Amino acid sequence: MLESVERRVEQFVGSLNEHDIARVIKKIPAGKRLRARLMLEIAGSSKSVIDTAAIVEMIHAASLLHDDVIDDADTRRGVASVNALYGSKSAIMIGDVLYSKAFYELVAVDKFVAQVVSNAVVQLSIGERKDVVMGEQFCTDKDAYLEMIYQKTAALIEAASEAAAILANKDREIYRVYGRNLGVAFQMIDDILDIVSDTETLGKPALNDFVEGKTTLPYIYLYEELESMEKEKLKSMHRRALSVSEQQWILSKFKEHKIIEKAKEEAFTLINEAIGLMQKAGEKGLEKIALKMVDRSF
Amino acid sequence: MLESVERRVEQFVGSLNEHDIARVIKKIPAGKRLRARLMLEIAGSSKSVIDTAAIVEMIHAASLLHDDVIDDADTRRGVASVNALYGSKSAIMIGDVLYSKAFYELVAVDKFVAQVVSNAVVQLSIGERKDVVMGEQFCTDKDAYLEMIYQKTAALIEAASEAAAILANKDREIYRVYGRNLGVAFQMIDDILDIVSDTETLGKPALNDFVEGKTTLPYIYLYEELESMEKEKLKSMHRRALSVSEQQWILSKFKEHKIIEKAKEEAFTLINEAIGLMQKAGEKGLEKIALKMVDRSF
Repeated sequence: MLESVERRVEQFVGSLNEHDIARVIKKIPAGKRLRARLMLEIAGSSKSVIDTAAIVEMIHAASLLHDDVIDDADTRRGVASVNALYGSKSAIMIGDVLYSKAFYELVAVDKFVAQVVSNAVVQLSIGERKDVVMGEQFCTDKDAYLEMIYQKTAALIEAASEAAAILANKDREIYRVYGRNLGVAFQMIDDILDIVSDTETLGKPALNDFVEGKTTLPYIYLYEELESMEKEKLKSMHRRALSVSEQQWILSKFKEHKIIEKAKEEAFTLINEAIGLMQKAGEKGLEKIALKMVDRSF
Repeated sequence: MLESVERRVEQFVGSLNEHDIARVIKKIPAGKRLRARLMLEIAGSSKSVIDTAAIVEMIHAASLLHDDVIDDADTRRGVASVNALYGSKSAIMIGDVLYSKAFYELVAVDKFVAQVVSNAVVQLSIGERKDVVMGEQFCTDKDAYLEMIYQKTAALIEAASEAAAILANKDREIYRVYGRNLGVAFQMIDDILDIVSDTETLGKPALNDFVEGKTTLPYIYLYEELESMEKEKLKSMHRRALSVSEQQWILSKFKEHKIIEKAKEEAFTLINEAIGLMQKAGEKGLEKIALKMVDRSF
């Protein structure tokens, strides 16, 4: 079924009759198509579901193109990013083409679905900006951080679930919460992986987020636990290259205060809540997707 | 009536509750609001017209933010561009916020209007890319050039007119052609002004388009007229800084072959056709708007 979504994306892009744009779009690694998977699992594979899933995946791809420009990322899922291959300007322009084509197709689907998905793109774009602005300073505000990752990452996953529920005539609210929890947990786990994974698994250096200025949840928790002098030490390391001994100090402090366990627990709580909702709803497939997220890479 | 559109844009942006984003958006010079003016003239000032005009102006503003990043433009209408003030990344992200908010609001208006406007954004984004790609080589293909400026500039003006006609229950086709002709002529005149205006009028150096690689209509016409040796000379000057004597040579050749007159005539033909349509339809206000475009800056 996922192949139908891939084909629909190709059809949408193909109908633009811009071969060089289509060629570039093919270079974007597809990833696991989490959003499309959720939608198919919730709502089956009718034309409107396939269309909406393709639209959501195009929006996601467009956001990745712009994200990689914003983050100066040379790689995406281990391969060269579009901005690295063709330059930032191409990535911006092709992102705009993908976004606008997705919105054009969105106008043709159910109005409530269009509302939910387009609202998520507003959240996503605000979240991306917050991520950058917050990265300019050491952040100790957990609520602000949670809101930002909700907007940046969870909003579109939430919208995909809710949109699928609308198309399947299922209870919007339950699937919305499921999607949101999965999305927030997904980003939390991503942030943890940046700390616990070596470069081989992740394709980027450990503690990279902190070096770039992103004070993710584990750093916020760590800061809460540290003594006054240590707090200053951590702050002084923010948003700059770290020496090996500085890296080791941070990692030892994470260990000492069981920070990773605490952050994992927070993500798992969200996932468990999502699983609970799906158990009640008798959605075995969606339970499995949530469970799989837990072992992503630990 | 135009003030109602400005206020609606402010309301849409304000409802995002992102004060620093709203502050940046206020720095985008409003320009003449051509698209909104056309819509109000065609369809009056009902809520749906004001909403749609505000949406179209937000889309236009978003496209300018991204355009200025793509073109490395430091100024926009004589004042510092958003990318110059806040950096390219901010301009990309705030452009995405504006685009997505506009699309979110677009979902709530008439479906046919949404279709027309969203299709124009696809054209616009494809056109922007073509403009850049075509600028990498000396272009002698008039049809390709005309298609590009239609997509880049005219498509959204055409869509604004057509959308207004739909909302006013007027003949879509007539207003569509009117908007398209005005849009293509607008870009042709813009391209001519780059050649005939001094920096004071335009806020940028004369022949700047050619220096940047853009072989606009006058250059395509000039190339057709030049002798073989001169053709090569012109080509050798493409996409690089020009000495004063090189500038003077190009300008003298434009004069010799009456190129500016020929290019103006082509723009005026489109405007006259638009005026003719409006005369038949009894649209005095729209005739005037078209006439005004002729004296823009000559």
